[in-house]
Formats: sequence, C-alpha cells, structure tokens
Amino acid sequence: MRAGSNLPAVGGYNQAVILDAVRRATEGVSRIEVATSTGLSAQTVTNIVRRLIHDGLVMEAGTRGNGVGKPRTILRLEPGGRFAVGVHLDPSVITLVLLNLAGEVVAHRTLKTTPEARASRTVARIARAVSELVTRSGVDAERIMGVGIAAPGPIDTATGVVLNPPLLTGWHDVPVRDELAAALGLPVILEKDVTAAVIAELWMDTAGERTDTAFMYCGTGIGLGVISGGEVLRGFSNNAGDVGSIIVGDISSEVEGEDSTSRGRLGWALSPRLMVDHAIEDGVVEGDAATMTIAEVAAAYAQMLRSDDDPRVARFVDAAVTEIARAMLILVNLLDVDHVVFGGPYFAPLSEAVLGRVPDLVMGSPLYRLPHEVTFSESTIGEDVAAIGAACLVLDDILSPRPQAFLIGR
Amino acid sequence: MRAGSNLPAVGGYNQAVILDAVRRATEGVSRIEVATSTGLSAQTVTNIVRRLIHDGLVMEAGTRGNGVGKPRTILRLEPGGRFAVGVHLDPSVITLVLLNLAGEVVAHRTLKTTPEARASRTVARIARAVSELVTRSGVDAERIMGVGIAAPGPIDTATGVVLNPPLLTGWHDVPVRDELAAALGLPVILEKDVTAAVIAELWMDTAGERTDTAFMYCGTGIGLGVISGGEVLRGFSNNAGDVGSIIVGDISSEVEGEDSTSRGRLGWALSPRLMVDHAIEDGVVEGDAATMTIAEVAAAYAQMLRSDDDPRVARFVDAAVTEIARAMLILVNLLDVDHVVFGGPYFAPLSEAVLGRVPDLVMGSPLYRLPHEVTFSESTIGEDVAAIGAACLVLDDILSPRPQAFLIGR
Repeated sequence: MRAGSNLPAVGGYNQAVILDAVRRATEGVSRIEVATSTGLSAQTVTNIVRRLIHDGLVMEAGTRGNGVGKPRTILRLEPGGRFAVGVHLDPSVITLVLLNLAGEVVAHRTLKTTPEARASRTVARIARAVSELVTRSGVDAERIMGVGIAAPGPIDTATGVVLNPPLLTGWHDVPVRDELAAALGLPVILEKDVTAAVIAELWMDTAGERTDTAFMYCGTGIGLGVISGGEVLRGFSNNAGDVGSIIVGDISSEVEGEDSTSRGRLGWALSPRLMVDHAIEDGVVEGDAATMTIAEVAAAYAQMLRSDDDPRVARFVDAAVTEIARAMLILVNLLDVDHVVFGGPYFAPLSEAVLGRVPDLVMGSPLYRLPHEVTFSESTIGEDVAAIGAACLVLDDILSPRPQAFLIGR
Repeated sequence: MRAGSNLPAVGGYNQAVILDAVRRATEGVSRIEVATSTGLSAQTVTNIVRRLIHDGLVMEAGTRGNGVGKPRTILRLEPGGRFAVGVHLDPSVITLVLLNLAGEVVAHRTLKTTPEARASRTVARIARAVSELVTRSGVDAERIMGVGIAAPGPIDTATGVVLNPPLLTGWHDVPVRDELAAALGLPVILEKDVTAAVIAELWMDTAGERTDTAFMYCGTGIGLGVISGGEVLRGFSNNAGDVGSIIVGDISSEVEGEDSTSRGRLGWALSPRLMVDHAIEDGVVEGDAATMTIAEVAAAYAQMLRSDDDPRVARFVDAAVTEIARAMLILVNLLDVDHVVFGGPYFAPLSEAVLGRVPDLVMGSPLYRLPHEVTFSESTIGEDVAAIGAACLVLDDILSPRPQAFLIGR
C-alpha cells in the first residue's frame, strides 16, 4: 500500500530539492534562481537555505549582479560539510575513497585482495584501513556520514550479506555490512558493484543528461549498471546487471537444452584470463594462465593489448569488438538507453577499438530498433568509479530528492 | 532540475493514494483502515473520501462490525464512475475495449487489420469503431476519460506518432494520437504495445506483488514489457522492450562483424511465419507461407501445434522451449525480476511446454545468478491484455499515486 504525504514529509523533500539545485549549479546559484527552477516560493527557499547554512551544508559565496537591481548572493555547496567513505571490494584490489559533499576524492587508498582468504580477516583489514584513511585525512569524524561498500553479486541488501561471488572463493554468506558497522561505529550500506558504478555516473552528471544510461563495467567480472528514467534499475533482490550470460558467439558445443558451459557467452568472451590463455597459446605473451594470480593476468592482458600492431593481437581485439557490439545491440534495443558508458580496469586497453567501431556496428545494424542515436563513451570517473559510487550512496540520502522521501514514515 | 512540492500538490497525491487503497481492497475497506494503511490522519481521509463520493469515484457499500464499537462503513470503488477506451493496434487484429474504473471490460470489439492499407483509413475506421462501441455500451459520454492506444514500436510518444513498425507496411510516421483525438474529441495516449501489456499486469495485480515482472508478449512480433521496482521501464524514447535481437542459436552464417540477418535471434526463432514455413517443408501443414496472410499464418500455426504427438511437431516445440529458456536466462540475470509472465495470441499453443520446462532450464542452469526463485506463469488477462493496458493508462492518471503527481506544476 502506498503511503500518503503531509507537511513535515514535504519539508524534508523540499530541502533535498534545494540542496540538489545548489549542488548541480557548478557556478553557484542565487535564492531567486532556486525558487524559479524548483517552483517553490521565495519564502520557502529562504527558510530552508537558512537551515542548510546553519547545518554547514550550504555556504554563501559572494554576490553576482546582472546590472539591474541589488546584486544577488550566490549559494554554493559547502564541500567539507559532510563526507562519506566508499569501499570497492574487487577480486583483485580493494579501493577506499573519502568523498566530500561536492563529490571530490579527498583521500584514497588501495589494498591487495586475497580472494581465497577468510572473509572475516579481509573485513577486519578493511575496517582498519577505513579508520586510518579517516584519521590521516584530518576530517572531523562527526562529519563522516557512513560507509558504502560495493561488492560483486550476488548480494543480499536486506541483510547486508555478500552471498557467494564466483571470483571471491573465500566469501560465502559474509555479513559484511554488520561486521563493518560494528567495527567502525558508522552506518554501512551494501550495494552491488555495477550498481554503485552507475550511481557514480548519475551523481557526477550535474547537467542531468544521463537519465537513460547503461554502464558496462569490465573488471575481473563483467556487469551492467542501468539508469532508466533517472532511476537506478536494481531489480527484485538488488542483483540486476548480470550480462555475462548474453550469447555473443557459438554455443553449438552445448548439450542441447542445457547451458552447461559459459562458452560463447559475453562473460566468457571477455574473460581476461581466457584472453591471456589464448595469447599464451599464440605466443604473444608467456606464462601459464592457469596458475597466474589475478594481478598477473591483469599485467599480461595489458602487455598483450599494448602490441596492437601484432596481427595476432589485432584478432583478439576484433573478436572483442564484435562480441561487445553484439551484446550492446541486444542491450540498447531492450533497455532503450541513449548513453552507453564503459569503464573498469580491463576496458582501457580496448577503449580506442571499442569506441571507434562499436557505435557503427550497433547503430548500423538492420536489427537496430531505436528512433534515436546512442552515445558511446568511456567513463571520466576512472578506476575508482565503484568506490566513488559506494560513497555517493551514503551522500545520496542527504542530497537526492527521492519521491519516497516525502511519504509519511519512509 | 527537480521540482519542489507544496500543499495543493500533496492534496492531489493523497487523493490518488486513497483511491488506490480503496481500489486494491477487493473486499471493501473502512475509512479508519485507509488512514492506518496510508499514514494519513482520519480527518484528511474523511475530507478526501467526501470529495471522492461527490465526484462519483467511491461509494459507501454497507457496514462491517468487528464486535467492538460502532460498525464501520465500507468504501468501494464506484465501478461506473469513470471509463476509458483501450485500442490495441496489432498487425493481425485491432482490439477495442471499454474498461470501467474497476478494470472490468464492459464492451469489446475487434476489427481485422489490413497492414498494407493507408494508415489514415485505418485510423478513421478505429475512430468510427470507438464511437460505436461507446454509443452501444450506453455509457454516459461524460464519464469516458479518454482513449489509450497500444501500437507496435518504434513510436514517438512525445508527438504521438507511430514511426515505422516492421510488420505494418502501410504505416510510416502516422500521427495516430492527434488524428484520433481530433476525430473523437477525447484525450488520446499512445504507448508501445508491450508496455501497455505489462501495465495491465501491474494494474490488475491488486495485491501489489508484481513489483519486478517481465511480460513476454508473443504476437505477430515479440516483445518484453518490464516492471522494475514497481515502475514501468519505458526507456529514453519509450521504446524499451525489443528482445527480438537476443541471440538464442547459431549466428555463424553471419558476415563477420555484421548483423546482416536476424538468423539465430529470438525474433527469428519464434517467428510464426518461419515456423509455419518449416512445418510446410516437413509436410505437417499445407500451403505456401510466403503468400499467406497473417491470419492464415496464425491458423496454420495453431493447427500445427495442436498435433503435438507428431514427432516433427515435437521438434518445433523443443526448439522453441530451448530458445525461450536461453533468452529468459539472459533476461532474468540482467533484470533481476521475480515474475515472468507470458501472453499474446501465439503463446497459448506453447504454454504447456514452456511453463512445464523453462523454469528448470533457467533456474537449473549453472549460469543462473539470482539468489531467489523466479515464478513463470501465463497471463490471466487473456488476448486483450494490450488493449486493456492501453485503457489502464488513461485510468492511471486518476488512480495511481505517482510521486511525480505531487511536484509543483507536473
């Protein structure tokens, strides 16, 4: 049953609306401009801004005249008003960031992941590293709103448990949210990694153009974060975004009617370990893929793709481009997005080939069904995108005017 | 920029919340129960219910005692308080329904589609048929809120134009919304067919369990309507839901790097015309698929699948089951839905085989990634689902508490 709304609930929502308007105005904004853009009365804006200044979330930053009448006081976000910690738990590396209210990374640290290690030891390492990050940053602990953690799926967000991610062999039903919260004395939010990554894109898009965006994250695993109609697509259990099973090649070696292998699927085709294994067979790089650590695979993958004038390497790149284009055609037809963003550590070496050739392969296909163009780009946020997104989740509660926020009791 | 909210906007939203609570209470509901479930004050509920009764949207329907205190007056929706027309423009048949506020079909009619006919003639036929449907139903024209039209994509919802649906050869850039509105003097909403179908599912689900549902519509074309987090996934241009390009079989005859054919794709694999063509080759049915009308294809398709003890037919069914299972594994992993509903005229003959075997093929796959089960079922709404959904769209404006409704100026 839907909840109704009343005045106090609306007040909280309008505060988030105003904060959001100030945040998106990268050049600053006057009270009267906020009133115009939100439809709120000048009096309501004045009252709420007074409270936001008092709470240290907004500051006055000079005046601006338009030649007519009194110059207007410019409002800006107080970047140091609040902070949040973001943690990205990836099978190869754990990334920690401390983000301020303006979305700037003010402290950063990485830890090597030992995927097979007991999860509780890793959680304890993360807790220590978060404490140290905050202490060294010199930020007032009172201003840290909480910790967001981005983890590979499947996860259970209701209980804050990482279930059994295929590439983190030591992790089974790990209550990472509650363990971290107990160790740090801070609220902790757990989110799937690709969802966190697309939230970072949504959050950094102050122009509000990314209302329908798919973010393809190429990490140790591959996943898709989706924003549709300005909202993040999370799914029933917050595990949306698995695209590894999309068929992009030959699956004919399958037992009929059974998906007994992942051959011919996107997750298999773009598996760095598999690509490195083939590169070893072809003599492009040396080693034994089966015994390589994730870090060694990453190094061999990068080394191999650097030699892109080698015809053997060009073949790998061609195959990857074809497979990504096939998956993208299916995904944009289904989701009707107008932006596709690529990111993650394994994307960079493919970036030029993918961005140069995939748009034509998708939009030039006779099966392309959309009446508009799709823009393909590489994320500008960089490798920390999932960690930053996890921190954004925490700040989101303060900053994002979410319709649910103004329902009674939500 | 997000809009703020104020008291009049909230009032309109609360009215929709209360109407929704009454609508979902199939056994009726008292004012105090509405107040409890919505969080609104008894006074607010009383005031709004008075207005709803006055406007003929809600009625008092007896009293109910719980043994303690005064028996409570029971509120119900006034089914005849408002009506809406729904039109489904399908390449084989045009379906018209007149729906009351309770979602009941009170009048129904079909017209044969002539896909190659000039679109403006078809629109004029639809307009005449709608007028006749309303006149014959005896419903007060004042109570008809408008017309919803469900059409194959791609469409342009902003301008109300059907662009160039592959199976409606006579239709190119047809301003169906404005032409119908002018002919009928009623507001008209245009929506993609699969979106309308999934809206019918959402609307008829009074228990509110279908928050994350995919509706696979097997008509002359194939499409997917998606509800995620209780909201319909429409996409940037309202054309989400094309699943025909999902690869489910062998695409090796493709020119490398080009999607020059639809071979091996879901839309191809489940094309009734292609299945009938193969059945003719195998001697299961007779005729010449290339010259058959859509209606003749439909008849041959149904005839062929009735003989399911014929091993040649069993092979078709096996292939369809395998291909649907492959597509469904990809879709549920991506979208994280917990309900999959099948419907549309071409689904019925496959229903038993698909519902019997697809759940195990999907959830038993080693590539199945969700930590919960998915329920597979056939729509209970029947063949008129898209027309009913189109009518629901019109009633939706009155009945559905949509967060956007309580933003200023929306």
